[in-house]
Amino acid sequence: MNLQNITITLSETKKEKPQSDQLEFGKVFTDHMFIMDFSTGLGWHDPRIVPYQPITMDPASMIFHYGQSVFEGLKAYQTDDGRVLLFRPEKNFRRLNQSNDRLCIPELDEEFVLEALKKLIEVEREWIPSAEGTSLYIRPFIISTEPFLGVHPSSSYKFMIILSPVGSYYKEGIHPVKIAVESKYVRAVNGGTGTAKTGGNYAASLKAQEVSEKIGYSQVLWLDGVEKKYIEEVGSMNVFFKINGEVITPALNGSILEGVTRTSIIELLKHWNVPVTERKISMDDVRQAYLDGTLEEAFGTGTAAVISPIGEFFWNDEKLVINDGKTGELSKKLFDTLTGIQTGKLADPLGWVVEVSKENTFSVAR
Amino acid sequence: MNLQNITITLSETKKEKPQSDQLEFGKVFTDHMFIMDFSTGLGWHDPRIVPYQPITMDPASMIFHYGQSVFEGLKAYQTDDGRVLLFRPEKNFRRLNQSNDRLCIPELDEEFVLEALKKLIEVEREWIPSAEGTSLYIRPFIISTEPFLGVHPSSSYKFMIILSPVGSYYKEGIHPVKIAVESKYVRAVNGGTGTAKTGGNYAASLKAQEVSEKIGYSQVLWLDGVEKKYIEEVGSMNVFFKINGEVITPALNGSILEGVTRTSIIELLKHWNVPVTERKISMDDVRQAYLDGTLEEAFGTGTAAVISPIGEFFWNDEKLVINDGKTGELSKKLFDTLTGIQTGKLADPLGWVVEVSKENTFSVAR
Repeated sequence: MNLQNITITLSETKKEKPQSDQLEFGKVFTDHMFIMDFSTGLGWHDPRIVPYQPITMDPASMIFHYGQSVFEGLKAYQTDDGRVLLFRPEKNFRRLNQSNDRLCIPELDEEFVLEALKKLIEVEREWIPSAEGTSLYIRPFIISTEPFLGVHPSSSYKFMIILSPVGSYYKEGIHPVKIAVESKYVRAVNGGTGTAKTGGNYAASLKAQEVSEKIGYSQVLWLDGVEKKYIEEVGSMNVFFKINGEVITPALNGSILEGVTRTSIIELLKHWNVPVTERKISMDDVRQAYLDGTLEEAFGTGTAAVISPIGEFFWNDEKLVINDGKTGELSKKLFDTLTGIQTGKLADPLGWVVEVSKENTFSVAR
Repeated sequence: MNLQNITITLSETKKEKPQSDQLEFGKVFTDHMFIMDFSTGLGWHDPRIVPYQPITMDPASMIFHYGQSVFEGLKAYQTDDGRVLLFRPEKNFRRLNQSNDRLCIPELDEEFVLEALKKLIEVEREWIPSAEGTSLYIRPFIISTEPFLGVHPSSSYKFMIILSPVGSYYKEGIHPVKIAVESKYVRAVNGGTGTAKTGGNYAASLKAQEVSEKIGYSQVLWLDGVEKKYIEEVGSMNVFFKINGEVITPALNGSILEGVTRTSIIELLKHWNVPVTERKISMDDVRQAYLDGTLEEAFGTGTAAVISPIGEFFWNDEKLVINDGKTGELSKKLFDTLTGIQTGKLADPLGWVVEVSKENTFSVAR
């Protein structure tokens, strides 16, 4: 498949774009979307950019019953000099294929879908907000569409990319969140789907989230599903701790999602010669460091918030307040550096950003 | 909400009904479906029977991204004297609400949806096949429809019931299946969603199923996610063992689905004064019984197959052949008794079947 195969149907009307200061996360979508179909025998076919519109689905479509689906999340940023940057998008499409493998969904051509994404972004160029902290959120996803109630991999799928202009995750700047440590519900376990970005993991997380919000905590910290001792993730983010000068994040153990921001932070810390370790870490270890006065910082990492400082953990009726509930120095430096690189304000020493080149404009292939 | 609120729009055309001997599972759907919407503020509303048709969904609908969904499966049977029977349907709607609670989906009025189902079945009366082993499979399900990419419970849902005439699960009569014991992948863990009937559990099961089929086994036996020692379920069924005269099934431990067939078998065995125990049972226990010559029978239980005898387990490169690979006496008696009760051929000593009364015909409320 090559880019010339992508047909483009432009929308006859254009939606009104929201004001930069009124952007919410994931509620407004742009004028167009990318869509491509899979069926056994034909493979992936009919790649097209079309007006954003509802899709029609048979009520027996497998996605409605057996949840066979995967997704990704990344962002496009507008630079001050008008260029459009993506942050390590090849990692998202690599991971999408890893999720596909776990969910028995046919593999995508990673290079092709990245080029298709660039083409879609060119079409939606005017939708990329430029105010501080804003970006265009990108949601590639695959759903199973075969109308069949047998529990088997679907014989047909849709791959789609939709786009949503999003505001700053922190309306009043980066600030720490309070986290409840979850002792009852489990996000994932080794041998399950925790390393894949699939709907079921997120559906499973809703209940714990609802319970923690009721007691005044905005997210949960997930412990391992076997011993309920070891730290896995926070909300839908990876988690880091700074203890006595060393930065520690749970090692990838078969139930933790390998976040692109997580990987980037590890690489950035190594680049800075800051000690960083991926290892098993228990909630007891964290509490002990807190008691010893060596728990200096904690933060979550993910595409939406980039860095989310943690001001407090609530565990077994005890509150562990970190760095007086303020954003730590390293958390702030990581946030400023990553967002600086992503938006082209800072140099890109590790070669992470990918420019959406003008050569990919839709006018070439139309 | 009462039955008079259900509006009925009949299909102008009728599909051709498949021959009784050509029925497959879950591929053909009837002429009508039941649908009802939920939105915050309005609650569940607009219950209606309409022609079976595709539904229109925004690409950002939560079901496509975060898998918030639940479903049920049950059957309607035609008796020799032309009555229509459901098997313990109140248990399915009770469990649907338990699944709803785990998945943060708003509760349904169980009595109302059962009456709505009866009304739909009356409309589709002619679709219920009558040949030996056939039935009308019923699939109630709920999907989250809010177009929003935040990880939160949806503010809108659709509850639907679709119907599919299905053939005998065993084309050539009940016969034993070969099962591979799964040592790598995990279906569910305590604190997860294993007790709920939600898409993610089934999506998670596809990979192990695919691997086992490649080595010639039709289903997998799931072990617990913590120690990978204790038996949980088989495929998408519950599992029973007969060891030295005692029938044993894994106790409900927080990760096993509480099957309606499972419950019914336990009740039936007690009614017959056959010793039956719900307890933890390990694969080592089963192997030891096999070596001792006391592993008399094994079978899976579920709505689709009712009883699925197990002729062989494959575990750690060892084959455990049960009862010479033949259907056991108790398995056969349970199958005959349950299907006999379900189809009205045998007496119903425990009061399980529910007749779809003529008083619920749509002609009353139209």
